Amino acid sequence: MQKTFKNEKILFAEPLFQCDGLAGFTRSELYENAIHRTLRINQLKKEHNWTQEDFDIAIRCLNYEVGFVIHLSMFIPAIERLATDDQKAKWLPLAESYRILGTYAQTELGHGTNLMALETTATFDPRTDEFVLRTPQLSSMKWWPGSLGKTATHAIVLAQLIIGNKNYGMNPFMVQLRSLEDHMPLPGIIVGDIGAKLGANSNDNGFLILNDVRIPRENMLARNSKVTKDGRYIQTSTNKANYATMVLVRLSIIRWAEDTIKNGSLIAIRYSAVRRQSSLQAGGPEMQVLDYQTQQYKIFPSLAASYALFFTYEAMMKEYEIAYAQIMRGNNQLLGQIHGQLSGLKAFASDLVTYELEMCRRSCGGHGYLKASVVGETLLHTLPLVTVEGDNTVMYLQCARYLLKQIAKALAGQDVDEPTSYLKKDILSYTCPVQKGEHCTNPNYLLKIYTQRAHSAIASVARQLQFDLESGKDQSSAFNNNLVSLVQAAKAHCQLCLMKNFVESVSALERTCSENLASVLRQLCLYFGLHGIVTASGEFLESEAIGLQQLEWIKAEELKSLAAIRPNAVALVDAFDLHDQTVMSALGRYDGNAYQHLFEAAKREPMNQTQVPPAYYKYLRDLIKGQPLAKL
Amino acid sequence: MQKTFKNEKILFAEPLFQCDGLAGFTRSELYENAIHRTLRINQLKKEHNWTQEDFDIAIRCLNYEVGFVIHLSMFIPAIERLATDDQKAKWLPLAESYRILGTYAQTELGHGTNLMALETTATFDPRTDEFVLRTPQLSSMKWWPGSLGKTATHAIVLAQLIIGNKNYGMNPFMVQLRSLEDHMPLPGIIVGDIGAKLGANSNDNGFLILNDVRIPRENMLARNSKVTKDGRYIQTSTNKANYATMVLVRLSIIRWAEDTIKNGSLIAIRYSAVRRQSSLQAGGPEMQVLDYQTQQYKIFPSLAASYALFFTYEAMMKEYEIAYAQIMRGNNQLLGQIHGQLSGLKAFASDLVTYELEMCRRSCGGHGYLKASVVGETLLHTLPLVTVEGDNTVMYLQCARYLLKQIAKALAGQDVDEPTSYLKKDILSYTCPVQKGEHCTNPNYLLKIYTQRAHSAIASVARQLQFDLESGKDQSSAFNNNLVSLVQAAKAHCQLCLMKNFVESVSALERTCSENLASVLRQLCLYFGLHGIVTASGEFLESEAIGLQQLEWIKAEELKSLAAIRPNAVALVDAFDLHDQTVMSALGRYDGNAYQHLFEAAKREPMNQTQVPPAYYKYLRDLIKGQPLAKL
Repeated sequence: MQKTFKNEKILFAEPLFQCDGLAGFTRSELYENAIHRTLRINQLKKEHNWTQEDFDIAIRCLNYEVGFVIHLSMFIPAIERLATDDQKAKWLPLAESYRILGTYAQTELGHGTNLMALETTATFDPRTDEFVLRTPQLSSMKWWPGSLGKTATHAIVLAQLIIGNKNYGMNPFMVQLRSLEDHMPLPGIIVGDIGAKLGANSNDNGFLILNDVRIPRENMLARNSKVTKDGRYIQTSTNKANYATMVLVRLSIIRWAEDTIKNGSLIAIRYSAVRRQSSLQAGGPEMQVLDYQTQQYKIFPSLAASYALFFTYEAMMKEYEIAYAQIMRGNNQLLGQIHGQLSGLKAFASDLVTYELEMCRRSCGGHGYLKASVVGETLLHTLPLVTVEGDNTVMYLQCARYLLKQIAKALAGQDVDEPTSYLKKDILSYTCPVQKGEHCTNPNYLLKIYTQRAHSAIASVARQLQFDLESGKDQSSAFNNNLVSLVQAAKAHCQLCLMKNFVESVSALERTCSENLASVLRQLCLYFGLHGIVTASGEFLESEAIGLQQLEWIKAEELKSLAAIRPNAVALVDAFDLHDQTVMSALGRYDGNAYQHLFEAAKREPMNQTQVPPAYYKYLRDLIKGQPLAKL
Repeated sequence: MQKTFKNEKILFAEPLFQCDGLAGFTRSELYENAIHRTLRINQLKKEHNWTQEDFDIAIRCLNYEVGFVIHLSMFIPAIERLATDDQKAKWLPLAESYRILGTYAQTELGHGTNLMALETTATFDPRTDEFVLRTPQLSSMKWWPGSLGKTATHAIVLAQLIIGNKNYGMNPFMVQLRSLEDHMPLPGIIVGDIGAKLGANSNDNGFLILNDVRIPRENMLARNSKVTKDGRYIQTSTNKANYATMVLVRLSIIRWAEDTIKNGSLIAIRYSAVRRQSSLQAGGPEMQVLDYQTQQYKIFPSLAASYALFFTYEAMMKEYEIAYAQIMRGNNQLLGQIHGQLSGLKAFASDLVTYELEMCRRSCGGHGYLKASVVGETLLHTLPLVTVEGDNTVMYLQCARYLLKQIAKALAGQDVDEPTSYLKKDILSYTCPVQKGEHCTNPNYLLKIYTQRAHSAIASVARQLQFDLESGKDQSSAFNNNLVSLVQAAKAHCQLCLMKNFVESVSALERTCSENLASVLRQLCLYFGLHGIVTASGEFLESEAIGLQQLEWIKAEELKSLAAIRPNAVALVDAFDLHDQTVMSALGRYDGNAYQHLFEAAKREPMNQTQVPPAYYKYLRDLIKGQPLAKL
């Protein structure tokens, strides 16, 4: 599925990357290991003349367990898009050669979503030609930026620009945090790690307090606006590249979600083919647990989601590239569309995989709770996706606002964007697309159901909002009373997008691949469509895209398709072409020796390095020997 | 809600229990700390003459972060129910005084659910009057028992009893694992910790390999069956106390689930009242996030579930006590009922809280990913509940088998058990109980909807199974083809149980409490009922317990009830009466200083104990100074 990485052998020949799992590592060890890894990949890149794409694939091969992520993915790109040419000439070579290490400091302890309310200020002091940066209270400290705690020497700090008594809004400032001589924080700067997280503990996400830190005027990144020596604020550009980058980060989260659910479904399916437990025939041989209908029902949604997200990422990347090229030419026409789509899809993809990964974990029974199984660890690393780069609820609402605009246009007879073109149809003209049981075996019929349901959800909340406003509710309570429905409408649209991308991609592939392969993919696509309807069946019934009879057909067909997928399930995850060292799971190894690998992992547990634990000498010995214990 | 623990002051006056969180602890430290805590509580018990109930409440006050859990909850009770009086006289005093430390070793690496297929053998050797215990292959090693890794000196090992060439099935054997002199494993015994888990890392869950370990014949726990000196197997009792204890453990999981969701909803609600973010009015002041409809929609299900599980636990405990008293008198009439109910409810309660805890975590935004928030840690400690003591899928199927028996009886005109008495009604005689919108504001009407839906789900799968069998399918594939529907039928019954317990408990309370309190509880109960229907609306529509019109009313009423609960939300979690030291969350403190507590927690992070991390001297210094790095 993913092009085999030709340099995988080179990568995994390195002792550093022949890792047996990081379960026993302290945070400091995880942190050091991640830095070590990145520096070594940089060396490999030089030694073997890897391209940037090779480098990026190598990082995926290491399951993102690397350092300097924010330096590479946000600090350098932010300089590229926010700095003037002079500033770029100064900062980029330093950043690219790791002579300075950076982070992007936006979120504060008290504010994430509402950027306009960030409290950090950068006040211009014309006497010294400097900005004075200040986090005025506890809630204003920067909090969360990756690499901020212990690594970064510099940060691009987002702050309210104050000139005189006037606030000119959020602007980016380059602030040096630590001495380049000895790495000590500079005067006025209090910086540190925000503490242990549920996962991602190799990253030193940090906090930053700025106590009147002075930086020269030229440290304001001034591609879009600048401050003159005499304190005038001048907007020099309305380039939307910054938005485009934000959108790109959301797209990369879809890719991340795809990668994690591939890991999860691979582990769950391979292990379920190894594990045998019970039998449905009295005295019969124990069954592979993958043969139980309930087990298939638990795991196959993840398998289908892996492919749906793969196809969706590919399709959205193409859309993004077209939009980005336009934006770079000063044409922002596609910005609203790509922003609306990717806000929703970021949320939908991360919601989907966090839910399904937990199902994968459960499908591994008790062993799924062991770190060595990695399926749970994958879940922990994935959990932040639902809140980073815009909380999912806020993301759905951004998508919903876009959909409301589109349906308003459609109702006014104006053109709408291509992804929402279905809103132009007259909603009353729909009839249930599935009239016979066999229609439920055709993904194209299911796609029509998804379309009708999305249209109905969007139209219904638009109508309700209008009704509430017309009946005299003020805008804020009208909105608040419809937030849940707005989220549901956005979800309906996103689910349609995934189904559409799956159906269209399989159709396109059919022209080039073997009929055997095509029929396996069609089956998986059908299952994805059936399962999605069943899991939200109430909403589909409500939309009248289906009735009770159709639901009965669809449910029966869903169960049938579980059995149809079963023979190809292992091959469908083998096709992800993931190296054992990438997945690092004792349960999900290619060789199927799950129990052996679990035992090997247990032997490495630090607590097993002595037969008798230190706690014995401290507490247990006296207890067992009946000696009275001192007051503890 | 929970009787204030009168000894809470004594407990939390102890420096040991004034804990600022365990985020920085290694596994060994967590392990030692848990042992230390339990020993200290034992001392407090003696010093202050605590009852056993006081001791148990103290453990809940410490959020179960204690040691010797299996020793107390399984090893000692197993001796009580499985040993003869002579054996009890020998082992109980030793165990109760901690002169021996025990565990209960049943689950193996390759087998959990299917106990009959456990592979460990205990072969009687009449020449020496001993049993020879053996784990014949890798998959046979005992794996998971708590305290087995490093603590236990003894284990009750479940093994297939072999006499001559005949297998007499699973029996319990007392096996000494470690020397009482120096705690070293005895000959033939290989024992250790199974490695890091996603949570519960203070527990040394262990593995155990038995290489022909010999124990005297009298170490077979022989309350129910024994082996004579000349190798005859004699069953001496058919007492079902062992089953009753298994059932009690499932009941205790419901209590555990209740405790964790109380923690989660308390953290989420208190923090959401502190956090302010954005506004729905342009330029308006930032709103408490708890005022957003979407935030209420995320958290109030947890609040309602906390109360539903509290009432359900109380009701089921009463049923259990009646059943247990009967069983002790040799009357097993209620065993099937209590087993069927609690199998399902164990699964339903743990499913419900693991789902809702993740929603609580998300409602805390990014900060929910920090260990210091504790909401995520609570989730991690709760995740094993869905697989321990019977995987939830298997639990639902046990409940479903019970329901199938009951509906068969009902159809045959026989008596059915009280909790399934609704199955006696003629299913065709149902009409939708809700005929007007205002009926949806009455929990009793909703209860009728739940009843009709459960009846429909059970009747439908029973019919389908019978149809499949009559059309010639063999039993095993007929069952396999209906597993998903069987699980759904069990869930429907369990959801009805929760709703019924909630409604009945509130009705009972109304007679004694103030009208103000009663109306708040009725509101929460109504919301629980409405929300449950909406989340499974497709299934309710399918059962024809409601139609589209009713669903529309119910959804509107659900949203209204969010707003109605809002003013009482903080009081409803304050009512849990949980001490800050019990919850240990930076976000959920009673004082509301979430940001201050988060920052204090960050300062304690071990990585913050030096300004410059060791990795600087190892890697970063040369990098930043542009020195060439050696091959890494």
